[in-house]
Amino acid sequence: MIVTVIGLGLIGGSMALDLKKSGFATEIIGVDANPAHLKEALKLGIADRTCEVNDALKEADLVLMAVPVDTMKRILPQVLDQIKSNTTVTDVGSTKKQICKSVENHPRRGNYVAGHPMSGTENSGPRAALEGLFKEKIAIICDQEQSRPQHVALVEKMYQALGMSIAFMSADEQDHSTAFISHLPHVTAFALANAVLAKENRKIIFDLASGGFRSTVRLAKSSASMWGPIFKQNKEYVVESIEVYQRHLDELKKAIAAEESDKMMELIDNASKIREVLDKKNPFLIKSEEKIVRLFTR
Amino acid sequence: MIVTVIGLGLIGGSMALDLKKSGFATEIIGVDANPAHLKEALKLGIADRTCEVNDALKEADLVLMAVPVDTMKRILPQVLDQIKSNTTVTDVGSTKKQICKSVENHPRRGNYVAGHPMSGTENSGPRAALEGLFKEKIAIICDQEQSRPQHVALVEKMYQALGMSIAFMSADEQDHSTAFISHLPHVTAFALANAVLAKENRKIIFDLASGGFRSTVRLAKSSASMWGPIFKQNKEYVVESIEVYQRHLDELKKAIAAEESDKMMELIDNASKIREVLDKKNPFLIKSEEKIVRLFTR
Repeated sequence: MIVTVIGLGLIGGSMALDLKKSGFATEIIGVDANPAHLKEALKLGIADRTCEVNDALKEADLVLMAVPVDTMKRILPQVLDQIKSNTTVTDVGSTKKQICKSVENHPRRGNYVAGHPMSGTENSGPRAALEGLFKEKIAIICDQEQSRPQHVALVEKMYQALGMSIAFMSADEQDHSTAFISHLPHVTAFALANAVLAKENRKIIFDLASGGFRSTVRLAKSSASMWGPIFKQNKEYVVESIEVYQRHLDELKKAIAAEESDKMMELIDNASKIREVLDKKNPFLIKSEEKIVRLFTR
Repeated sequence: MIVTVIGLGLIGGSMALDLKKSGFATEIIGVDANPAHLKEALKLGIADRTCEVNDALKEADLVLMAVPVDTMKRILPQVLDQIKSNTTVTDVGSTKKQICKSVENHPRRGNYVAGHPMSGTENSGPRAALEGLFKEKIAIICDQEQSRPQHVALVEKMYQALGMSIAFMSADEQDHSTAFISHLPHVTAFALANAVLAKENRKIIFDLASGGFRSTVRLAKSSASMWGPIFKQNKEYVVESIEVYQRHLDELKKAIAAEESDKMMELIDNASKIREVLDKKNPFLIKSEEKIVRLFTR
């Protein structure tokens, strides 16, 4: 199967490597607006060849879009315009509602499967691509009733080839959950980095930076060109998640400031319950036979 | 040299393992209020033997205190009361001002060297002890002019045996810097855990938890018995650090909510500058010949 990957960065590049290695793709055609990325992708074995986007779309059995979500929303309708009638198109964007909306009335909406493989690192570009990045992680497929079954089935197989479990939910549910589990931690890391960078004595503070600080602030290294558009597209839920977080932060601050020891210990004890939750391995696995699994209803 | 370690948890246990392995300690005497910890420490090779605290203090060349900071403040004067006149006492507490204050007028203040080896994990107890935990990390020695030179020299040698670099500063400077680099990231992780745990749909949110969330919230697994007393002892600086952070968080939230794209991108771009700072390896190394290095003056 010929897979055309649009966007040869961390996510597109890592997926390309494993789709080729697993035998799912017989050939990877690389497309990227940045000529340097194309060159690097060929050198790193991420793409077997590159060609003009029109030809790359015409030749593809599966088109995998891995560009920032603002670009995704803009070019997805054009991609659907240009594919063959039986080509499957999927994307990896961290937001889904606005991207799905951009093609809701497109005659080829059924060819598109809205996806979000939940993995990544704070690095970007083809050189950041890693084999095995998605293994044992979760991929979300959204609004699958809008996609034709054969396209959903192919995208499921693609995620399975990467070693992923699959969760099905609506685009709205995915944007809400992802705000809390992914977008909010990026916001808190950006704010933490800015707070410490703003200190006059930041040099000594950074010199002392231990593993705890590095881990907590790691996501702040992520690129603005990727994260700005995510925050913009998922504004309502991101702001909601920040406000929930602000209330909990303020509660803990007040308990510390007022030396309310019992309250403070209760809040820390409660937080450490997250250990039980996070220490579970591969918490759910939805078998591909169960075609629709409603995970929760709000 | 006989080293008595009071508190055989993550930090005390890890230091004991490496002090023995490096040859710095010929014998480790273990002291812990928890009999189960004593038993485990013997089994894990953290302590060579255990004995009554009075005897353990009398026999020691070096007493290493690694208990929660509230206990540290309470028992440090008693430890100084009971040691031989030439025994060195040091501690590993994350706060230093109140602990130093507890012995400021003690006749044996000069035997005590206030220390803070900057490393750790989110786990606790003897079974959390790890070899190599302190290698290439920074240890802080505070208010060294209050300690007699031979005791400072011995504690320096201890940190060097663990492979650490040493920074000298006042207890006030250490409490201020540590508030930002260590205590604040714990606060933000506790609040993030509480915010997500409070959501009705937390199950699905946790099921989706990817590496980014896990990394950002990791410190929330830390124990309340260790962190409650740290926040209490360093209240002023911890609250200051939270308030600086709150301002930066709110600025980013407002830019997202108002769709001020330029502002938002600027804030994210600024945050990602932390990459340059954190990617430097072993940023400073103070040679032990330079006996006093003032790292910054506020």
